[in-house]
Amino acid sequence: MNPISTEKIVQPVPEPTVRRMPTYLNYLRDLAKRQEQFITAPTIGRVLHLDPTQVVKDMAFTGVSGRPRVGYLVTELVAALEDFLGYNRTHEAFLVGAGFLGSALIQYQGFRESGLRIVAAFDIDKKKVGIDIAGVPVFHFEKFRDLANRLHISIGIITAPAPAAQQVADLMVGWGIRAIWNFAPVPLVVPDHIIVQDTHIYANLAVILNKLKNINEI
Amino acid sequence: MNPISTEKIVQPVPEPTVRRMPTYLNYLRDLAKRQEQFITAPTIGRVLHLDPTQVVKDMAFTGVSGRPRVGYLVTELVAALEDFLGYNRTHEAFLVGAGFLGSALIQYQGFRESGLRIVAAFDIDKKKVGIDIAGVPVFHFEKFRDLANRLHISIGIITAPAPAAQQVADLMVGWGIRAIWNFAPVPLVVPDHIIVQDTHIYANLAVILNKLKNINEI
Repeated sequence: MNPISTEKIVQPVPEPTVRRMPTYLNYLRDLAKRQEQFITAPTIGRVLHLDPTQVVKDMAFTGVSGRPRVGYLVTELVAALEDFLGYNRTHEAFLVGAGFLGSALIQYQGFRESGLRIVAAFDIDKKKVGIDIAGVPVFHFEKFRDLANRLHISIGIITAPAPAAQQVADLMVGWGIRAIWNFAPVPLVVPDHIIVQDTHIYANLAVILNKLKNINEI
Repeated sequence: MNPISTEKIVQPVPEPTVRRMPTYLNYLRDLAKRQEQFITAPTIGRVLHLDPTQVVKDMAFTGVSGRPRVGYLVTELVAALEDFLGYNRTHEAFLVGAGFLGSALIQYQGFRESGLRIVAAFDIDKKKVGIDIAGVPVFHFEKFRDLANRLHISIGIITAPAPAAQQVADLMVGWGIRAIWNFAPVPLVVPDHIIVQDTHIYANLAVILNKLKNINEI
Protein backbone atom coordinates (compact mmCIF):
# COMPACT_ATOMS: atom_id res chain seq x y z
CA MET A 1 0.00 0.00 0.00
CA ASN A 2 1.18 3.52 -0.69
CA PRO A 3 2.00 5.71 2.28
CA ILE A 4 -0.56 8.43 2.78
CA SER A 5 0.52 11.65 1.15
CA THR A 6 -1.01 15.05 1.70
CA GLU A 7 0.37 16.53 -1.49
CA LYS A 8 -2.77 15.96 -3.49
CA ILE A 9 -6.03 16.89 -1.85
CA VAL A 10 -8.92 15.16 -3.52
CA GLN A 11 -12.22 16.96 -3.27
CA PRO A 12 -14.69 14.15 -2.60
CA VAL A 13 -17.74 14.20 -4.81
CA PRO A 14 -20.99 14.33 -2.78
CA GLU A 15 -22.62 10.91 -2.55
CA PRO A 16 -25.98 12.02 -4.00
CA THR A 17 -24.07 13.28 -7.05
CA VAL A 18 -22.22 9.97 -7.39
CA ARG A 19 -25.53 8.11 -7.15
CA ARG A 20 -27.02 10.19 -9.97
CA MET A 21 -24.10 9.60 -12.34
CA PRO A 22 -25.28 6.19 -13.63
CA THR A 23 -28.69 7.74 -14.30
CA TYR A 24 -27.12 10.54 -16.34
CA LEU A 25 -24.95 8.08 -18.21
CA ASN A 26 -27.89 5.87 -19.11
CA TYR A 27 -29.82 8.81 -20.46
CA LEU A 28 -26.83 10.24 -22.33
CA ARG A 29 -26.01 6.88 -23.91
CA ASP A 30 -29.58 6.72 -25.13
CA LEU A 31 -29.21 10.17 -26.69
CA ALA A 32 -25.93 9.10 -28.34
CA LYS A 33 -27.65 6.04 -29.76
CA ARG A 34 -30.31 8.33 -31.23
CA GLN A 35 -27.56 10.47 -32.82
CA GLU A 36 -28.38 13.52 -30.71
CA GLN A 37 -25.40 15.85 -30.75
CA PHE A 38 -26.09 18.35 -27.98
CA ILE A 39 -28.15 18.40 -24.82
CA THR A 40 -28.86 21.24 -22.39
CA ALA A 41 -28.95 21.03 -18.60
CA PRO A 42 -32.62 22.13 -18.47
CA THR A 43 -33.57 19.29 -20.82
CA ILE A 44 -31.61 16.74 -18.77
CA GLY A 45 -33.28 18.15 -15.67
CA ARG A 46 -36.75 17.93 -17.17
CA VAL A 47 -36.32 14.33 -18.36
CA LEU A 48 -34.72 13.07 -15.14
CA HIS A 49 -36.82 15.23 -12.80
CA LEU A 50 -33.87 17.16 -11.44
CA ASP A 51 -33.19 20.83 -10.91
CA PRO A 52 -31.11 22.17 -13.88
CA THR A 53 -28.75 23.92 -11.43
CA GLN A 54 -28.12 20.55 -9.83
CA VAL A 55 -27.45 19.02 -13.23
CA VAL A 56 -24.84 21.70 -13.99
CA LYS A 57 -23.19 21.18 -10.59
CA ASP A 58 -23.13 17.41 -11.02
CA MET A 59 -21.68 17.60 -14.52
CA ALA A 60 -18.90 19.93 -13.35
CA PHE A 61 -17.49 16.98 -11.38
CA THR A 62 -16.86 15.14 -14.65
CA GLY A 63 -14.75 18.05 -15.88
CA VAL A 64 -17.08 18.77 -18.78
CA SER A 65 -18.92 22.05 -19.10
CA GLY A 66 -21.74 23.02 -21.40
CA ARG A 67 -21.40 25.46 -24.27
CA PRO A 68 -23.48 28.61 -24.55
CA ARG A 69 -26.89 27.98 -26.10
CA VAL A 70 -26.24 24.40 -27.35
CA GLY A 71 -25.33 22.79 -24.02
CA TYR A 72 -23.21 19.67 -23.61
CA LEU A 73 -21.67 17.68 -26.43
CA VAL A 74 -23.31 14.27 -25.91
CA THR A 75 -20.35 12.07 -26.88
CA GLU A 76 -17.99 14.13 -24.74
CA LEU A 77 -20.26 13.84 -21.72
CA VAL A 78 -20.76 10.09 -22.21
CA ALA A 79 -16.98 9.57 -22.26
CA ALA A 80 -16.51 11.81 -19.21
CA LEU A 81 -19.23 9.99 -17.25
CA GLU A 82 -17.81 6.59 -18.17
CA ASP A 83 -14.43 7.78 -17.01
CA PHE A 84 -15.85 9.26 -13.79
CA LEU A 85 -17.70 6.03 -13.00
CA GLY A 86 -14.72 3.86 -13.89
CA TYR A 87 -16.74 1.93 -16.48
CA ASN A 88 -13.74 1.88 -18.80
CA ARG A 89 -11.56 0.23 -16.17
CA THR A 90 -12.01 -3.23 -14.68
CA HIS A 91 -12.51 -3.62 -10.96
CA GLU A 92 -12.13 -7.23 -9.94
CA ALA A 93 -14.20 -8.56 -7.09
CA PHE A 94 -14.60 -11.76 -5.09
CA LEU A 95 -18.04 -12.93 -4.07
CA VAL A 96 -18.73 -14.97 -0.95
CA GLY A 97 -21.88 -17.06 -0.82
CA ALA A 98 -22.71 -18.88 -4.05
CA GLY A 99 -26.39 -19.39 -3.25
CA PHE A 100 -29.34 -18.08 -5.23
CA LEU A 101 -28.51 -14.40 -4.91
CA GLY A 102 -24.78 -14.91 -5.41
CA SER A 103 -25.41 -16.97 -8.55
CA ALA A 104 -27.80 -14.36 -9.86
CA LEU A 105 -25.25 -11.59 -9.38
CA ILE A 106 -22.53 -13.66 -11.05
CA GLN A 107 -24.78 -14.33 -14.02
CA TYR A 108 -25.80 -10.70 -14.19
CA GLN A 109 -23.45 -9.59 -16.91
CA GLY A 110 -24.66 -6.02 -16.65
CA PHE A 111 -21.93 -5.48 -14.08
CA ARG A 112 -19.26 -6.10 -16.68
CA GLU A 113 -20.41 -3.05 -18.59
CA SER A 114 -20.10 -1.10 -15.36
CA GLY A 115 -16.47 -1.90 -14.68
CA LEU A 116 -17.11 -4.67 -12.16
CA ARG A 117 -15.94 -8.20 -12.83
CA ILE A 118 -16.62 -10.98 -10.36
CA VAL A 119 -13.58 -13.19 -10.93
CA ALA A 120 -14.18 -15.87 -8.31
CA ALA A 121 -16.87 -17.03 -5.91
CA PHE A 122 -16.41 -18.73 -2.54
CA ASP A 123 -18.57 -20.97 -0.42
CA ILE A 124 -18.19 -23.56 2.33
CA ASP A 125 -20.84 -25.89 0.88
CA LYS A 126 -19.06 -28.92 -0.61
CA LYS A 127 -21.78 -29.23 -3.23
CA LYS A 128 -20.89 -25.79 -4.59
CA VAL A 129 -17.11 -25.85 -4.27
CA GLY A 130 -15.53 -26.93 -7.56
CA ILE A 131 -18.39 -25.98 -9.86
CA ASP A 132 -18.42 -22.88 -11.97
CA ILE A 133 -21.25 -20.43 -12.49
CA ALA A 134 -21.30 -18.71 -15.89
CA GLY A 135 -17.57 -19.29 -16.15
CA VAL A 136 -16.78 -18.05 -12.65
CA PRO A 137 -15.16 -20.76 -10.49
CA VAL A 138 -16.44 -21.47 -6.97
CA PHE A 139 -13.65 -22.13 -4.46
CA HIS A 140 -13.74 -23.11 -0.81
CA PHE A 141 -13.78 -20.00 1.37
CA GLU A 142 -10.43 -21.00 2.89
CA LYS A 143 -8.76 -20.16 -0.45
CA PHE A 144 -10.03 -16.57 -0.32
CA ARG A 145 -7.06 -15.10 1.54
CA ASP A 146 -4.37 -16.51 -0.68
CA LEU A 147 -6.17 -15.73 -3.94
CA ALA A 148 -7.16 -12.21 -2.85
CA ASN A 149 -3.53 -11.47 -2.07
CA ARG A 150 -2.18 -12.92 -5.29
CA LEU A 151 -4.79 -11.22 -7.47
CA HIS A 152 -4.78 -7.92 -5.51
CA ILE A 153 -8.53 -8.01 -5.04
CA SER A 154 -9.93 -5.03 -3.15
CA ILE A 155 -13.70 -5.55 -3.53
CA GLY A 156 -15.61 -8.25 -1.65
CA ILE A 157 -19.27 -8.98 -2.30
CA ILE A 158 -21.18 -10.69 0.51
CA THR A 159 -24.15 -12.83 -0.47
CA ALA A 160 -23.59 -15.29 2.35
CA PRO A 161 -26.43 -16.26 4.71
CA ALA A 162 -27.17 -13.53 7.24
CA PRO A 163 -25.77 -15.33 10.30
CA ALA A 164 -22.39 -15.70 8.57
CA ALA A 165 -22.16 -12.20 7.09
CA GLN A 166 -20.33 -10.44 9.94
CA GLN A 167 -17.75 -13.19 10.23
CA VAL A 168 -17.17 -13.14 6.48
CA ALA A 169 -16.73 -9.37 6.65
CA ASP A 170 -14.24 -9.65 9.54
CA LEU A 171 -12.16 -12.16 7.60
CA MET A 172 -12.33 -10.12 4.39
CA VAL A 173 -11.04 -7.06 6.23
CA GLY A 174 -8.23 -9.08 7.79
CA TRP A 175 -7.36 -10.40 4.34
CA GLY A 176 -6.95 -7.00 2.75
CA ILE A 177 -10.35 -6.28 1.22
CA ARG A 178 -10.99 -2.52 1.20
CA ALA A 179 -14.57 -2.30 -0.03
CA ILE A 180 -17.46 -4.57 0.90
CA TRP A 181 -20.71 -4.71 -1.03
CA ASN A 182 -23.14 -6.30 1.39
CA PHE A 183 -26.30 -8.02 0.15
CA ALA A 184 -26.92 -9.90 3.42
CA PRO A 185 -29.71 -8.41 5.53
CA VAL A 186 -27.32 -7.63 8.37
CA PRO A 187 -25.75 -4.34 9.42
CA LEU A 188 -21.98 -4.93 9.26
CA VAL A 189 -19.49 -3.47 11.70
CA VAL A 190 -16.09 -2.79 10.12
CA PRO A 191 -13.12 -0.48 10.77
CA ASP A 192 -13.55 3.14 9.63
CA HIS A 193 -11.19 2.85 6.68
CA ILE A 194 -13.23 0.05 5.10
CA ILE A 195 -15.88 1.02 2.54
CA VAL A 196 -19.23 -0.68 3.10
CA GLN A 197 -22.22 -0.39 0.81
CA ASP A 198 -25.43 -2.19 1.68
CA THR A 199 -27.99 -3.31 -0.86
CA HIS A 200 -30.74 -4.73 1.25
CA ILE A 201 -33.08 -6.27 -1.26
CA TYR A 202 -35.23 -7.90 1.40
CA ALA A 203 -35.64 -4.61 3.26
CA ASN A 204 -36.92 -3.00 0.05
CA LEU A 205 -39.29 -5.89 -0.55
CA ALA A 206 -40.50 -5.66 3.05
CA VAL A 207 -41.33 -1.97 2.58
CA ILE A 208 -43.34 -2.68 -0.58
CA LEU A 209 -45.34 -5.54 0.94
CA ASN A 210 -45.97 -3.59 4.13
CA LYS A 211 -47.30 -0.57 2.23
CA LEU A 212 -49.51 -2.82 0.09
CA LYS A 213 -50.86 -4.45 3.25
CA ASN A 214 -51.67 -1.02 4.70
CA ILE A 215 -53.58 -0.09 1.53
CA ASN A 216 -55.52 -3.34 1.63
CA GLU A 217 -56.40 -2.86 5.28
CA ILE A 218 -57.80 0.63 4.86
CA MET B 1 -61.30 -1.75 -5.73
CA ASN B 2 -62.79 -1.19 -2.30
CA PRO B 3 -64.02 2.27 -1.49
CA ILE B 4 -61.84 3.97 1.08
CA SER B 5 -63.29 3.56 4.52
CA THR B 6 -62.29 5.48 7.60
CA GLU B 7 -63.71 2.94 10.03
CA LYS B 8 -60.45 1.19 10.64
CA ILE B 9 -57.43 3.37 11.23
CA VAL B 10 -54.24 1.48 10.58
CA GLN B 11 -51.23 2.75 12.45
CA PRO B 12 -48.49 2.62 9.86
CA VAL B 13 -45.30 0.95 11.01
CA PRO B 14 -42.29 3.28 10.65
CA GLU B 15 -40.25 2.44 7.54
CA PRO B 16 -36.95 1.92 9.42
CA THR B 17 -38.75 -0.67 11.56
CA VAL B 18 -40.12 -2.42 8.47
CA ARG B 19 -36.64 -2.45 6.95
CA ARG B 20 -35.20 -4.12 10.06
CA MET B 21 -37.80 -6.88 10.15
CA PRO B 22 -36.09 -9.18 7.58
CA THR B 23 -32.85 -8.81 9.57
CA TYR B 24 -34.60 -9.86 12.77
CA LEU B 25 -36.27 -12.76 11.01
CA ASN B 26 -33.00 -14.03 9.57
CA TYR B 27 -31.36 -13.96 12.95
CA LEU B 28 -34.34 -15.54 14.72
CA ARG B 29 -34.59 -18.31 12.13
CA ASP B 30 -30.93 -19.07 12.75
CA LEU B 31 -31.61 -19.30 16.49
CA ALA B 32 -34.56 -21.61 15.85
CA LYS B 33 -32.35 -23.82 13.71
CA ARG B 34 -29.90 -24.01 16.58
CA GLN B 35 -32.73 -25.05 18.92
CA GLU B 36 -32.50 -21.88 21.03
CA GLN B 37 -35.74 -21.47 22.91
CA PHE B 38 -35.63 -17.91 24.23
CA ILE B 39 -33.87 -14.71 23.28
CA THR B 40 -33.74 -11.35 25.06
CA ALA B 41 -33.96 -7.92 23.46
CA PRO B 42 -30.47 -6.93 24.74
CA THR B 43 -28.96 -10.01 23.08
CA ILE B 44 -30.74 -9.29 19.79
CA GLY B 45 -29.52 -5.70 20.08
CA ARG B 46 -25.94 -6.74 20.73
CA VAL B 47 -25.82 -9.18 17.82
CA LEU B 48 -27.52 -6.87 15.32
CA HIS B 49 -25.92 -3.66 16.62
CA LEU B 50 -29.19 -2.07 17.64
CA ASP B 51 -30.37 -0.34 20.78
CA PRO B 52 -32.34 -2.86 22.94
CA THR B 53 -35.10 -0.27 23.44
CA GLN B 54 -35.44 -0.09 19.66
CA VAL B 55 -35.63 -3.87 19.47
CA VAL B 56 -38.48 -3.93 22.00
CA LYS B 57 -40.32 -1.18 20.10
CA ASP B 58 -39.87 -2.97 16.77
CA MET B 59 -41.03 -6.30 18.14
CA ALA B 60 -44.16 -4.72 19.60
CA PHE B 61 -45.36 -4.16 16.02
CA THR B 62 -45.45 -7.91 15.48
CA GLY B 63 -47.82 -8.26 18.45
CA VAL B 64 -45.36 -10.39 20.40
CA SER B 65 -43.95 -9.27 23.73
CA GLY B 66 -41.09 -10.69 25.72
CA ARG B 67 -41.50 -12.51 29.01
CA PRO B 68 -39.83 -11.34 32.19
CA ARG B 69 -36.24 -12.57 32.48
CA VAL B 70 -36.31 -15.11 29.59
CA GLY B 71 -37.27 -12.74 26.79
CA TYR B 72 -39.01 -13.76 23.58
CA LEU B 73 -40.02 -17.29 22.66
CA VAL B 74 -38.02 -17.82 19.46
CA THR B 75 -40.57 -19.90 17.54
CA GLU B 76 -43.37 -17.48 18.43
CA LEU B 77 -41.34 -14.50 17.24
CA VAL B 78 -40.33 -16.25 14.00
CA ALA B 79 -43.99 -16.95 13.23
CA ALA B 80 -45.00 -13.38 14.11
CA LEU B 81 -42.25 -11.89 11.93
CA GLU B 82 -43.14 -14.16 9.00
CA ASP B 83 -46.73 -13.08 9.38
CA PHE B 84 -45.78 -9.40 9.66
CA LEU B 85 -43.61 -9.60 6.54
CA GLY B 86 -46.19 -11.59 4.62
CA TYR B 87 -43.74 -14.44 3.98
CA ASN B 88 -46.50 -16.97 4.56
CA ARG B 89 -48.65 -15.42 1.86
CA THR B 90 -47.87 -15.26 -1.85
CA HIS B 91 -47.65 -11.90 -3.56
CA GLU B 92 -47.65 -12.33 -7.30
CA ALA B 93 -45.67 -9.92 -9.42
CA PHE B 94 -45.05 -9.17 -13.09
CA LEU B 95 -41.58 -8.23 -14.25
CA VAL B 96 -40.91 -5.99 -17.24
CA GLY B 97 -37.54 -6.24 -18.94
CA ALA B 98 -36.20 -9.78 -19.33
CA GLY B 99 -32.57 -8.74 -19.78
CA PHE B 100 -29.66 -9.71 -17.58
CA LEU B 101 -30.98 -8.19 -14.38
CA GLY B 102 -34.56 -9.31 -14.98
CA SER B 103 -33.41 -12.87 -15.66
CA ALA B 104 -31.25 -12.83 -12.54
CA LEU B 105 -34.19 -11.71 -10.40
CA ILE B 106 -36.46 -14.35 -11.91
CA GLN B 107 -33.89 -17.05 -11.20
CA TYR B 108 -33.33 -15.75 -7.71
CA GLN B 109 -35.54 -18.17 -5.86
CA GLY B 110 -34.83 -16.46 -2.55
CA PHE B 111 -37.82 -14.26 -3.27
CA ARG B 112 -40.15 -17.23 -3.12
CA GLU B 113 -39.26 -17.73 0.54
CA SER B 114 -40.12 -14.09 1.08
CA GLY B 115 -43.64 -14.22 -0.23
CA LEU B 116 -42.87 -12.81 -3.68
CA ARG B 117 -43.52 -14.84 -6.78
CA ILE B 118 -42.71 -13.49 -10.21
CA VAL B 119 -45.37 -15.21 -12.31
CA ALA B 120 -44.65 -13.70 -15.70
CA ALA B 121 -42.07 -11.55 -17.45
CA PHE B 122 -42.58 -9.13 -20.31
CA ASP B 123 -40.33 -7.72 -22.98
CA ILE B 124 -40.61 -6.17 -26.43
CA ASP B 125 -37.57 -8.01 -27.80
CA LYS B 126 -38.79 -10.71 -30.21
CA LYS B 127 -35.83 -12.91 -29.25
CA LYS B 128 -37.06 -13.02 -25.66
CA VAL B 129 -40.82 -13.22 -26.17
CA GLY B 130 -41.94 -16.84 -26.07
CA ILE B 131 -39.05 -18.26 -24.08
CA ASP B 132 -39.24 -19.09 -20.43
CA ILE B 133 -36.73 -18.31 -17.72
CA ALA B 134 -36.59 -20.81 -14.86
CA GLY B 135 -40.18 -21.74 -15.62
CA VAL B 136 -41.42 -18.16 -15.87
CA PRO B 137 -42.86 -17.36 -19.30
CA VAL B 138 -41.81 -14.23 -21.17
CA PHE B 139 -44.70 -12.49 -22.96
CA HIS B 140 -44.81 -9.48 -25.23
CA PHE B 141 -45.35 -6.33 -23.17
CA GLU B 142 -48.66 -5.72 -24.97
CA LYS B 143 -50.13 -8.71 -23.08
CA PHE B 144 -49.36 -7.11 -19.71
CA ARG B 145 -52.65 -5.25 -19.31
CA ASP B 146 -54.92 -8.16 -20.02
CA LEU B 147 -52.96 -10.64 -17.91
CA ALA B 148 -52.53 -8.24 -14.99
CA ASN B 149 -56.27 -7.71 -14.93
CA ARG B 150 -57.14 -11.37 -15.19
CA LEU B 151 -54.62 -12.43 -12.56
CA HIS B 152 -55.21 -9.43 -10.26
CA ILE B 153 -51.53 -8.55 -10.18
CA SER B 154 -50.69 -5.54 -8.02
CA ILE B 155 -46.88 -5.59 -8.03
CA GLY B 156 -44.80 -4.62 -11.06
CA ILE B 157 -41.03 -5.00 -11.16
CA ILE B 158 -39.17 -2.78 -13.63
CA THR B 159 -35.87 -4.08 -14.98
CA ALA B 160 -36.36 -2.44 -18.36
CA PRO B 161 -33.64 -0.26 -19.88
CA ALA B 162 -33.47 3.17 -18.25
CA PRO B 163 -34.90 5.15 -21.19
CA ALA B 164 -38.05 2.99 -21.16
CA ALA B 165 -38.58 2.86 -17.40
CA GLN B 166 -40.85 5.91 -17.01
CA GLN B 167 -43.08 4.85 -19.90
CA VAL B 168 -43.35 1.32 -18.49
CA ALA B 169 -44.27 2.80 -15.10
CA ASP B 170 -46.94 5.04 -16.66
CA LEU B 171 -48.51 2.07 -18.45
CA MET B 172 -48.33 -0.12 -15.33
CA VAL B 173 -50.15 2.53 -13.32
CA GLY B 174 -52.80 2.86 -16.01
CA TRP B 175 -53.20 -0.91 -16.02
CA GLY B 176 -53.90 -1.20 -12.31
CA ILE B 177 -50.49 -1.92 -10.77
CA ARG B 178 -50.36 -0.50 -7.25
CA ALA B 179 -46.74 -1.08 -6.26
CA ILE B 180 -43.66 -0.68 -8.46
CA TRP B 181 -40.27 -2.10 -7.58
CA ASN B 182 -37.89 -0.13 -9.75
CA PHE B 183 -34.44 -1.48 -10.60
CA ALA B 184 -33.88 0.92 -13.49
CA PRO B 185 -31.49 3.76 -12.67
CA VAL B 186 -34.18 6.37 -13.22
CA PRO B 187 -36.25 8.34 -10.72
CA LEU B 188 -39.88 7.50 -11.54
CA VAL B 189 -42.73 9.96 -11.32
CA VAL B 190 -46.03 8.32 -10.39
CA PRO B 191 -49.32 9.38 -8.78
CA ASP B 192 -49.26 9.70 -4.97
CA HIS B 193 -51.30 6.57 -4.33
CA ILE B 194 -48.80 4.35 -6.13
CA ILE B 195 -46.08 2.68 -4.06
CA VAL B 196 -42.61 2.99 -5.55
CA GLN B 197 -39.50 1.37 -4.15
CA ASP B 198 -36.17 1.93 -5.86
CA THR B 199 -33.27 -0.50 -5.72
CA HIS B 200 -30.55 1.27 -7.60
CA ILE B 201 -27.83 -1.31 -7.87
CA TYR B 202 -25.74 0.83 -10.19
CA ALA B 203 -25.90 3.78 -7.83
CA ASN B 204 -24.57 1.57 -5.03
CA LEU B 205 -21.81 0.27 -7.26
CA ALA B 206 -20.94 3.83 -8.31
CA VAL B 207 -20.56 4.85 -4.65
CA ILE B 208 -18.21 1.94 -3.94
CA LEU B 209 -16.02 2.53 -6.99
CA ASN B 210 -15.90 6.27 -6.34
CA LYS B 211 -14.80 5.80 -2.73
CA LEU B 212 -12.15 3.29 -3.80
CA LYS B 213 -10.89 5.78 -6.39
CA ASN B 214 -10.64 8.47 -3.72
CA ILE B 215 -8.59 6.17 -1.50
CA ASN B 216 -6.28 5.29 -4.38
CA GLU B 217 -5.80 8.95 -5.27
CA ILE B 218 -4.80 10.07 -1.77
